[in-house]
Amino acid sequence: MYPRTINNLIECFKKFPGIGEKTAERLALSCLNMDEETLELFASSLKDSKTKIKKCKKCGNLSEEETCTICKDESRDQNTICVVEESKNIILFEKIGTFNGVYHVLNGLISPLDGINPEDINISSLIKRIKEENIKEVILAVKPTVEGETTALYIRKLLEGTDIVISKIAHGIPMGADMDYIDSLTLEIALSERSQIS
Amino acid sequence: MYPRTINNLIECFKKFPGIGEKTAERLALSCLNMDEETLELFASSLKDSKTKIKKCKKCGNLSEEETCTICKDESRDQNTICVVEESKNIILFEKIGTFNGVYHVLNGLISPLDGINPEDINISSLIKRIKEENIKEVILAVKPTVEGETTALYIRKLLEGTDIVISKIAHGIPMGADMDYIDSLTLEIALSERSQIS
Repeated sequence: MYPRTINNLIECFKKFPGIGEKTAERLALSCLNMDEETLELFASSLKDSKTKIKKCKKCGNLSEEETCTICKDESRDQNTICVVEESKNIILFEKIGTFNGVYHVLNGLISPLDGINPEDINISSLIKRIKEENIKEVILAVKPTVEGETTALYIRKLLEGTDIVISKIAHGIPMGADMDYIDSLTLEIALSERSQIS
Repeated sequence: MYPRTINNLIECFKKFPGIGEKTAERLALSCLNMDEETLELFASSLKDSKTKIKKCKKCGNLSEEETCTICKDESRDQNTICVVEESKNIILFEKIGTFNGVYHVLNGLISPLDGINPEDINISSLIKRIKEENIKEVILAVKPTVEGETTALYIRKLLEGTDIVISKIAHGIPMGADMDYIDSLTLEIALSERSQIS
């Protein structure tokens, strides 16, 4: 019913996760009210996302260069690797601003039920990197689910016998949380991983 | 923190209504998993939305031609005009499939509080059309709000003294609704506009 261009826009928007028919229609129609400059930038960025965005050959982070800005940054501690599931997790850590090491993006977690085995994610490149560079600490910063724990365990096993410090980020009560709403599993972990304060 | 292309995509997505920082980030990143064909189509459609989409010179509907497909369709009853607020309302009527007349898009409703006066919306072109063509019925299909009612009243006043049938779509209990959840204003209208069935 709409002109072809608008139908095309609706179809394209519908391909994004979480966008249904109604939202796609609303977004497509709001393109008509945008200024030309924004639309030009949007169009060229969409094309660039296929051609310009690569994965950093060292850590797997999204980058427009062969090596990403974090791996290239010599002011950073290149001997501490924080292992994350996805590129976007790096942004979260960078926002805190206190971590000065580098990252390694697994691009997934081991999940045999979904057919994702250790060789399907970037574990071998991590091990290669640990062997070739002078890595002192590997921080496992994957989410606390079955898949996350499995992946962490697997990496720990692979590094057994080396003198590299392997750590994982702390799990417990989130800051500012209301104790009434904490699930029992979190409470259990918070209790068992308690730290002495005096 | 993200490469420039991704930052650009995030900024573009954020310009859409109802899309915040987090959603924009999610959408921008999911562009990376799309196939080239979709991205090409998306990019070209975005540009086309500025260059190709016009308003039908007759009814104001979105169109890629001078006159939209509905106005051009000779099998339709060109003497009955359904007046709607926006182009997208036409799609709703077309989906029912029983209306065989043509449309007129006001592109807004009279709303003095928001500074929208009768001359700011497509009322004069409607009146011109009614005078020049052999229009028999004008169906007012605007929403039942203060703005909608004001607009309907204004159009009715302008057509006073002509022999054109002016009607408005019915208001009442929506089909399949639970009576418990009907607001009192709707119930009042449903009661006063009751129809005899025997």
